[in-house]
Amino acid sequence: MLKNAAIKTSNPDEFLSDFVILSKIGRTPSGGVDRQAASRHDGETRRWLFRWLESHDVTPRIDHIGNLFGLVEFRAGAPYVLAGSHLDSQPTAGAFDGAYGVLAAAHAVTAVRDAVNRGDIDQPRYNLAIVNWFNEEGSRFAPSIMGSGVYSGELDLQTCLSTTDEKGTSVRQALTEIGFLGDQTAPFASAYIELHIEQGRSLENHGVDIGLVFSNWAVSKLDVTLEGEQAHTGTAAIVDRRDALVGAAKMIVLAHDMSQAKPENLLVSVGRVSIYPNVPGVVPSRVTIAIDIRSPSESLLEEALRELTEKIFDIGESGDLAISLPDTPIRPCVIFPEAELILGEIAADVHGLSHQRMVTRAGHDAIRMNRMVPTLLAFVPSENGVSHSESERTSDADLVNGISFLTQALAMLASSEAVDLKDH
Amino acid sequence: MLKNAAIKTSNPDEFLSDFVILSKIGRTPSGGVDRQAASRHDGETRRWLFRWLESHDVTPRIDHIGNLFGLVEFRAGAPYVLAGSHLDSQPTAGAFDGAYGVLAAAHAVTAVRDAVNRGDIDQPRYNLAIVNWFNEEGSRFAPSIMGSGVYSGELDLQTCLSTTDEKGTSVRQALTEIGFLGDQTAPFASAYIELHIEQGRSLENHGVDIGLVFSNWAVSKLDVTLEGEQAHTGTAAIVDRRDALVGAAKMIVLAHDMSQAKPENLLVSVGRVSIYPNVPGVVPSRVTIAIDIRSPSESLLEEALRELTEKIFDIGESGDLAISLPDTPIRPCVIFPEAELILGEIAADVHGLSHQRMVTRAGHDAIRMNRMVPTLLAFVPSENGVSHSESERTSDADLVNGISFLTQALAMLASSEAVDLKDH
Repeated sequence: MLKNAAIKTSNPDEFLSDFVILSKIGRTPSGGVDRQAASRHDGETRRWLFRWLESHDVTPRIDHIGNLFGLVEFRAGAPYVLAGSHLDSQPTAGAFDGAYGVLAAAHAVTAVRDAVNRGDIDQPRYNLAIVNWFNEEGSRFAPSIMGSGVYSGELDLQTCLSTTDEKGTSVRQALTEIGFLGDQTAPFASAYIELHIEQGRSLENHGVDIGLVFSNWAVSKLDVTLEGEQAHTGTAAIVDRRDALVGAAKMIVLAHDMSQAKPENLLVSVGRVSIYPNVPGVVPSRVTIAIDIRSPSESLLEEALRELTEKIFDIGESGDLAISLPDTPIRPCVIFPEAELILGEIAADVHGLSHQRMVTRAGHDAIRMNRMVPTLLAFVPSENGVSHSESERTSDADLVNGISFLTQALAMLASSEAVDLKDH
Repeated sequence: MLKNAAIKTSNPDEFLSDFVILSKIGRTPSGGVDRQAASRHDGETRRWLFRWLESHDVTPRIDHIGNLFGLVEFRAGAPYVLAGSHLDSQPTAGAFDGAYGVLAAAHAVTAVRDAVNRGDIDQPRYNLAIVNWFNEEGSRFAPSIMGSGVYSGELDLQTCLSTTDEKGTSVRQALTEIGFLGDQTAPFASAYIELHIEQGRSLENHGVDIGLVFSNWAVSKLDVTLEGEQAHTGTAAIVDRRDALVGAAKMIVLAHDMSQAKPENLLVSVGRVSIYPNVPGVVPSRVTIAIDIRSPSESLLEEALRELTEKIFDIGESGDLAISLPDTPIRPCVIFPEAELILGEIAADVHGLSHQRMVTRAGHDAIRMNRMVPTLLAFVPSENGVSHSESERTSDADLVNGISFLTQALAMLASSEAVDLKDH
C-alpha cells in the first residue's frame, strides 16, 4: 500500500502558519533569529514546541542533555523512528536552519499518526518521535552537534554538562535556567531522518526539489594560540615587538589564500578570534583563533592540515611567537546507507518531486546519528545558498514539498517494508 | 638661593616603601598591575592616595571628571603649579607607568612645602598641587588622556561623562561607583610638571639620568569598520563570501608592513579588534579595528595616512566590503617651552644628574597641559624600554634621582625666578 500511495500531509497552511509563529521567537530586526543554545530565546522556542506537542497529543520527554522529544507510540516497547533537527541558532542567523526540520518533523509525525488512526495505512512496526537536539550550532558551547553527540555516544554527558560559555556559565546551569535540564530516558532509535535547508546552491542551480545526502565533507577544527609580549603601541620599536595579533592576522590571510587556491576541494575559515588585552594602546600578547578546515576528501584534508600547520609554525617563528596547537581529531567523511537513499528517492517520486544525490559540506545532527542507526538526511533548496545569515530564505512551495517528502519517508521507515533494490 | 642650593628631598626610603605599598594595589601574579580607569582597583589606588594626602596635611579635591588633586596653599588666591601624572593602568600593565609620576609629585610637593616651612627656601609665589589625572590610558573609556583633556578644555566634560565602556557603563556611572565623581572646582594652574618612565631605550642606551622632552610624535587614531555578510564557514564558497575578518587581517598585516618599511619614522599598530558575531561556525560580518599611527613629522604622518587610507579602501573593494572610516584628527607634534627645558636642565645639574633633550613617541597628560600652560615633561630610564607590560621596571636609584630632580624643578617653578637664558 505504501509504495504507491501518497500519505496525506497535514494541511500545508497549518504548517506555514506555525512556522511564521515559530520564526517570531527571538526574531531580529532584519527578520532573522537569535536563539543560541540554552539562551532565553532558545527556552521560549522550546516551550512553544512543548505546548505544540501537548496540544497535538504527542508526549514530550526531555533527556539529561536537554534533547526534547515528542513521542507517538503505536507498539509498546518497540524502538522509535526519530525525525527532527535543532531549534537553536547562531547569533543573528536565519529562521530556517534547524527550526524548519523540527517543525517539519512535528507535522510529519502527526500526519503519519493521523493516517494510521484513519486506517489509511497499516499500524507501523516502529513508534515515532520528533526530536529537537540540544546545541547543534556550538556558537555558545563547544563542541557543536552536542545533543545528538551525547545521544549517539560520541560525546560524554558529564563533560558536555560541565562545558562553559565565555561568561563561565555551564551547560548544566544554562539548561537549568531555561527549565530544560531533563531527567527522562531518551527513546531508543531504530532509524533517524532529518530534513534541512541545503545551505548551498546545488538544488537551486539544478532546479531540483529534494537533495538526498550520500556523504559529507571531512572537517577539522583547530584552536591555535599565539603568545607574544605586551608592549606600548606608541613606543615599542617594530623590531622589538612580539605582536600576537600580527601573527594571527597572517594566519587568517593564509587560511583565505589556501581556500582560494583549491575552491572545490578545500574550505579554511576563521570565525572566532580571542585577543588579549584587546585595548587600543597595547600590542596584544595572546591571541587564539578558531580555524575551521573542510574537504570532500580525508586525504586532501590531512595534506592541507600538514601544510597549514607548517606555515603556522613559520609565522610563529618569524614573529618570535610561541604557538600552541592542540592535536585535533578529524571528523571523517561518512557514507549514508544506500537503502535509506533509495527509500528517499521513492518517497520523493511518490509525490512527484525531483531529487538528486549530493554531498553536504556542513555538519548536521544526522552525521552523528548515522554512526548509530540507519539515517536519511534530506535537503530542500535555500535561496542563493545563503545560511548562517539573516537573509537565509526558502520559498513556501519548497517548504511544503519537504513536508510531503518527509511524511512519506517517515511512514515508510516506520512501516519498515523492505525496500526492494531490484524494483527501483 | 634656589639656583645653587639643592632642595632636600623627602627621605628616599619613605618614597620607595610608599611605592611598594602602592604597587600592591591591583597587583597581578606576574608583578604588574591591573587598574583600568574607574575600576575597583583604580578606586582602591585613589582611596590610598586620598588618605596619603590627608595624613600629610595636603588638601584633597576631586573635580567633575574625577581628577584628584592635593593642594598646598602658600598664598590665598594664587594659581597652582601642578605636578602629577595618572594612577590608572592598561590591563595587566607595569606598576611604574603613571603611578610613579603621581607618587613622585606627592613626595616632591610635600618636600618643597617642608623646605618652605623650615625656612630653607623663600615663600613661593605660586601654590602647589599634586594631581592624579583620570583615565590617561583610555583602554576602558576612549579617548585616552581624558581627565587632563577636560581640564585643559580640549575635551567636553558632558561628552566624556557619557562615554561608555564595552559593557555599556558610562564614565559617570563608573566614577560614581568608586566614589570619585567629584563636584569641586579644579585648582587654577600656572604651570605643569610631569615625571614619567621613558617607555623607550634612549636614556638607558646613553647612560643618562633625566630626559627632558622638547617635542612629541604626531599621532592619529583610526577606527576602521568593515561590513561584509554573515555566512556558514562550512558551506559558503570562498568566492561568494564577504568576509570582514579577512579584510581586517589584511589591514593588520598592512599596518605592520608600513612600520617595517620606515622603522625610524612611522609606527602603525592595531591593539583592539571587535568582531561580530565572533563564533566558530560563522563568517564574520562586521569588524572594527583601532589603528594607531605615529610619526615624528606631521607631514610624514599625513602622507602615511593617505597611503593607509587608499590601501584600506583597496582591501575593502577586493573583498566586497563596505568601509567606514571616520575623519580622525591628527594630534600634532607640539614643542615644549624653552624656558621650562632650561629650568629642567638647571634642576638636574644642581643634583649632579646627567640629562638630555629628547622626543616622546607616547602620549602623556603633559601634552594636553602644554597647550594650556608652560609644561615640563621629564623621564627617568626604563629597563629595556619595556612599557605597557608587566615586565616594566625602573631601578630604585633612577626612581630616587627622579624625585630629587622633580623636587628641585617644582621649587623653581613655584618660586618662578626668571630663568636667565644668558647665564645658562
